[in-house]
Amino acid sequence: MKYCVGIDFGSLSARALLVEVGTGKELSTAVFDYPHAVMDERLPDGTPLMPDWALQHPQDYLDSIAATVPEVIRQAGIDKNDVVGVGIDFTACTMLPVYADGTPLCFDPALAGDPHAYVKLWKHHAAQPYANRLNEIARQRGEKFLARYGGKISSEWMIPKIWQILDEDPALYEKADRFIEAADWVIWQLCGKEMRSSCTAGYKAIWHKREGYPSNEFFKALDPRLEHVVDEKLSRQIHSIGEKAGEITEKAAALSGLPVGCAVAVANVDAHVSVPALGICQSGNMLMIMGTSTCHIHLGDEEKIVPGMCGVVEDGVLPGFMGYEAGQSCVGDHFNWFVENLSNAEYEREAREKGVSLHELLSEKASKLAVGESGLLALDWWNGNRSVLVDVDLTGMMLGMTLLTKPEDIYRALVESTAYGTRKIIETFEASGVPITGLYACGGIAEKNPFVMQIYADVCNKEIKVARSAQSPALGSAMFGAVAGGKARGGYDSIFDAAREMGGVKERSFKPIKENAEVYDRLYAEYSTLHDYFGRGENDVMKRLKDIKAQQIAKNL
Amino acid sequence: MKYCVGIDFGSLSARALLVEVGTGKELSTAVFDYPHAVMDERLPDGTPLMPDWALQHPQDYLDSIAATVPEVIRQAGIDKNDVVGVGIDFTACTMLPVYADGTPLCFDPALAGDPHAYVKLWKHHAAQPYANRLNEIARQRGEKFLARYGGKISSEWMIPKIWQILDEDPALYEKADRFIEAADWVIWQLCGKEMRSSCTAGYKAIWHKREGYPSNEFFKALDPRLEHVVDEKLSRQIHSIGEKAGEITEKAAALSGLPVGCAVAVANVDAHVSVPALGICQSGNMLMIMGTSTCHIHLGDEEKIVPGMCGVVEDGVLPGFMGYEAGQSCVGDHFNWFVENLSNAEYEREAREKGVSLHELLSEKASKLAVGESGLLALDWWNGNRSVLVDVDLTGMMLGMTLLTKPEDIYRALVESTAYGTRKIIETFEASGVPITGLYACGGIAEKNPFVMQIYADVCNKEIKVARSAQSPALGSAMFGAVAGGKARGGYDSIFDAAREMGGVKERSFKPIKENAEVYDRLYAEYSTLHDYFGRGENDVMKRLKDIKAQQIAKNL
Repeated sequence: MKYCVGIDFGSLSARALLVEVGTGKELSTAVFDYPHAVMDERLPDGTPLMPDWALQHPQDYLDSIAATVPEVIRQAGIDKNDVVGVGIDFTACTMLPVYADGTPLCFDPALAGDPHAYVKLWKHHAAQPYANRLNEIARQRGEKFLARYGGKISSEWMIPKIWQILDEDPALYEKADRFIEAADWVIWQLCGKEMRSSCTAGYKAIWHKREGYPSNEFFKALDPRLEHVVDEKLSRQIHSIGEKAGEITEKAAALSGLPVGCAVAVANVDAHVSVPALGICQSGNMLMIMGTSTCHIHLGDEEKIVPGMCGVVEDGVLPGFMGYEAGQSCVGDHFNWFVENLSNAEYEREAREKGVSLHELLSEKASKLAVGESGLLALDWWNGNRSVLVDVDLTGMMLGMTLLTKPEDIYRALVESTAYGTRKIIETFEASGVPITGLYACGGIAEKNPFVMQIYADVCNKEIKVARSAQSPALGSAMFGAVAGGKARGGYDSIFDAAREMGGVKERSFKPIKENAEVYDRLYAEYSTLHDYFGRGENDVMKRLKDIKAQQIAKNL
Repeated sequence: MKYCVGIDFGSLSARALLVEVGTGKELSTAVFDYPHAVMDERLPDGTPLMPDWALQHPQDYLDSIAATVPEVIRQAGIDKNDVVGVGIDFTACTMLPVYADGTPLCFDPALAGDPHAYVKLWKHHAAQPYANRLNEIARQRGEKFLARYGGKISSEWMIPKIWQILDEDPALYEKADRFIEAADWVIWQLCGKEMRSSCTAGYKAIWHKREGYPSNEFFKALDPRLEHVVDEKLSRQIHSIGEKAGEITEKAAALSGLPVGCAVAVANVDAHVSVPALGICQSGNMLMIMGTSTCHIHLGDEEKIVPGMCGVVEDGVLPGFMGYEAGQSCVGDHFNWFVENLSNAEYEREAREKGVSLHELLSEKASKLAVGESGLLALDWWNGNRSVLVDVDLTGMMLGMTLLTKPEDIYRALVESTAYGTRKIIETFEASGVPITGLYACGGIAEKNPFVMQIYADVCNKEIKVARSAQSPALGSAMFGAVAGGKARGGYDSIFDAAREMGGVKERSFKPIKENAEVYDRLYAEYSTLHDYFGRGENDVMKRLKDIKAQQIAKNL
C-alpha cells in the first residue's frame, strides 16, 4: 500500500493529513497552531504595526511541517518510504521577500525589526491605496487583464503588496531578491528550488498562461522603479498545478520525516485544491467552499468574462481547464454577527440547557418555518458585495419586520440572503456563457449545517453534493502529492485519476424541494429587484450613509 | 382652597388624581387595576372568545371609582365638599350595549354568557371585516366624511363594532337600547343622565358638529337594519367637551365619596384631554402623547384635509378649535420589540450589574453615538404605517448594517425612524395648510427618556416642551371637572382659564442642536426617498412578502 501527505496551511494553523493512495482513506491527521499567529499589532521585537496590517512569521510554516508530518506518519504506523508524494495548499496571496537562496529577509537579524521584512498575510489590507492607484492606471490604459479579474485587482494580491514595500521601504525592496508566495516558498524549502505555481501566479499575480504578466510599460506607469519588477523580483517560469516540483532534499527530510527523494507537488491555493477532493473532473461543475465567506471555484472550457468574478486562470484549478474563481465575502460571518450581537438571553439559556450552540438552536427553530413564512427579505451585504457588483461600499438591508418577528426569522433571512447571493453568481456565470451543470460544496457550513444546505438547494433549485472528506483542502493536496509521485512509484499520472479514485462526495446530497423552489423563485425575484435598486445606482443611499458616517467620525476625532 | 378630581381610565387600570384649583398642585393619586383586566380568551363564565377579541367588564369601572376617589380625598386630607368638580377620560372607542336605563346588557344574568353583551375595548379588532366593507361602501358612495378621517374608518371605532354585533348577534342587537362609549356611560353613572361627548362622537362615531352623522341612506347601504341606527341606538344630542354634564347623584355619591351635587364634566378621550394639562390654549400647537404608540393632537383654526390624519373634530379637543388627531401606531413598541427579541446576554448582564433597565443601557450607549455614526436608516413600519400612508400592510425596513453594527446602533436607528415618522406627519400637516408652530410632548417616553426626546427635537428641528405633570390625562380631566364646577363655585368658567392657571410644562425643554439638525436633514431626505419608494407603490415588495407569508401559513395549517 502507498500513501500520500497533504498539508493545508490556514490563517492560524496548519493541518497535515496522511491518505491511502487508491482509496482516499484518511489514516491520520495532525494540526499545529502557528506560535506567532497573525501579527497585527506588533512584531516579535515589539515594533508596533499600523492599522490594517496583518503579518506572519515564516518560521511558523517550517515548525508546522516539523510538528505535523512526522506525527501523521507515526500515528498511521506506516513506513515513511511508502509515502509517494507530498502536496501543500496555502492561503493566498500570502507573500514574503526572500534572498536569492530563499532565506526570508525577516530571518536576517539586521531586519528583524522591519515590518516589511515579514510575510504579508492575505488579509493584510494596508496596500489598499496602491491597489486603488493600480486599478485607476490600468483602467486609463485600457489594460485587458482587468476584465479577467472582475474589473479590479484586490489590495490583497501580489502587485499592490510589492508596490507598498517599494514605496514605504525602498531600501528593503532593494535588498529583496525575490517576492514569493508563501505557498511557493514552502515548496522551495521542501525540494530546494523555486517552482512557482500557475494557481498562485494566475489568481494573485496577474499572470496569464498565454499572455504572461502585464507589460513592463504598465509596471513603469505605476512607478518607474517597478518597470522590471517581474524579471528582477518575480519569475516568468510558472509551473502548472499537477506538475511535480521536485523531491524532498536532505534538509527537508530532516525537517519533515519524509524520505529523501519523495515527490513534491507544485503548490496550490486552499480553495482551489479542494476541487479534486470531491472527485470533480468535468467542466460545468462549481464548488462552493462555505465558511465565514464562500469561495466559488468553477471549471470551464473557455475563457469568458463574467461580471464580478475574482479571476479566470487557465490550468489554475485542474490542468486543461479554465478555472474560474468567484466569491461572497460574507456568508457565515452574517450568522456569526447575529449570534454575537443579537442573540437574546432566553435563547442563550435554552441553548445551554439543550447543550447545543446558538447556531444550532437558531437553525433548529428557523428550520421549522415554511419558506416565506418569516416575511423577511435581506440583502447579504454586511461586508459589502464582492461578487457580481464588486462594491465594498454596499451595506446590509432587511425588510419585512413586524412586532412579531422572532430571532429565528432574522437568522433564516440572513441564511436565505446568502443563498440568493450564490444564485446571483450562478445566474451571472450562466448569462456570461459559462454554464453551471453541477453544484458541490465543502467547508464548515456544508459539513455541519443541513438546514443551510437545504435552503441553498431550494433557492438555487439545484442538487448540491457535499464533500465526503471534512478536510477537503488537505485531501486535495495529498492527491496532488500522489500525482507528483507518479504511477510508476505507486501514485498517479494525472490528478484526474487521483480524483476518480480518491475523491468523492457523501451519499446524502441536498435535493431541491419543488414547492420550496417555487416560492423561492418569487422571493428571489424580489431580492433581484432590490439588489439592482440599491446596488446599481438607482438609489445610492448606502454610499451616502457611509459618507455621512465617515464625516461624522472624522469630525469627532 | 378648592379642589377637583380627574379619573383616567386606561386599558388595564384607572387612576384618580386630586388637584388644587388655581395652582394645579397634585395632592394625591390612587390607581386601581381592573379585576377582569382585558378579556381576550374567555368570559368570566368560561365562554371562549375568538381571536382578535378584547372585552372589558363595566363593573371594573365602577369599582375603580369606589376604590380610588374616596382614597385620594382621604390621602389629601381635604373636605370632600371642597371638591368643585370631577372629570374623566377614557380609552376610545371602548363601547358597550346598555338598556334604556343605562344598565349594561352584561349585567343581565341571562346575557352573562354572551360575548357581545360586554364592553368592546378599543383594541378589539374582530370588527375588521365590517370596517373594510364600510370603507368600501363609503368610497363607492363618495361619502365626504371619509376625508376627515384620513380616508379610512378604523375597525376600532363605533360603527364597525355596532355592525359586528348586529351581524353576529342580531338578537342582542335588538335587546340593546343604546350603544355608548364607556366614557359616556361612566358619566351617565355619575350624574344620572346620558350626556354624550363631542370628543368621543366626533373622533369615534363619525359625528360632525355641522353635518351630524352620516345619512340614514348611508347606514341603510351598509345593512338595511342599520338605516335608523343613530336614532334607535345612538343619540343626536352631543355635548361639547368643556360643558357640565350634570351633578353627582346620591347613588354616585355613595359610590365615589364625592358630595351630592358636585359638578361632573362631559367625558373626554385620554389623549385629547392632555392638551390643557400642558397649558396649551392656542392654535398651531401639536401635542405628542408618546408611549408604545404616539398620538398627535393638534389645535387648528380651520378644517383642512390632511392625508393620513385620524380625524378632525370641531370642539373635539378644546371648544372653539378644530382638533386634529394623527398618530404613529408603533413607537415605543419598536424599542420594546428590540429589547424583548434581540438584546444579547452580555448587555443583559451589564444592565443587571448597573441596576438599570435594558432600555436605559441601550439609550446610554446609543446616546454616545454622533448623528449618522451608526450608518443605519430604518422605516418605522414594524406595525404598519397608520399615519401619512395609512397602510397597515407595510412592514419594517433597515439598511446600512455591517459586521461592526452593534445593538445600540440598531436601537438608535429605531428611535430615529420614529422621529422621522413624526417629522413626516408635521410636514404633511404644514403642506396641507395646517401650520405647526409649537411642539409639546407628554407620556412615558417624554417623561423618562431625554435621549429619545433630544433626537426628536434634532430631527424635527423644533423645540419640544414636556408636560410638567407625569399624569397629564388625569390632570386634564380634573381641570375639566373644575370647569364643570364653574367660577362661582370655586372652579373656572372656561378650560382656557384652567389651562393657564393649572396646566404647564417643565422648565427643561429639548432644543434642537444645530449641527445635529443639519445632519438629520440629510438623513431625513434619505428616509423620505425610501418612504415613498416602499410606501407609495414604486416597489410593493412588502405587500408581496406579506401575501406569500399568508399563503404559506394557510397552506401549512
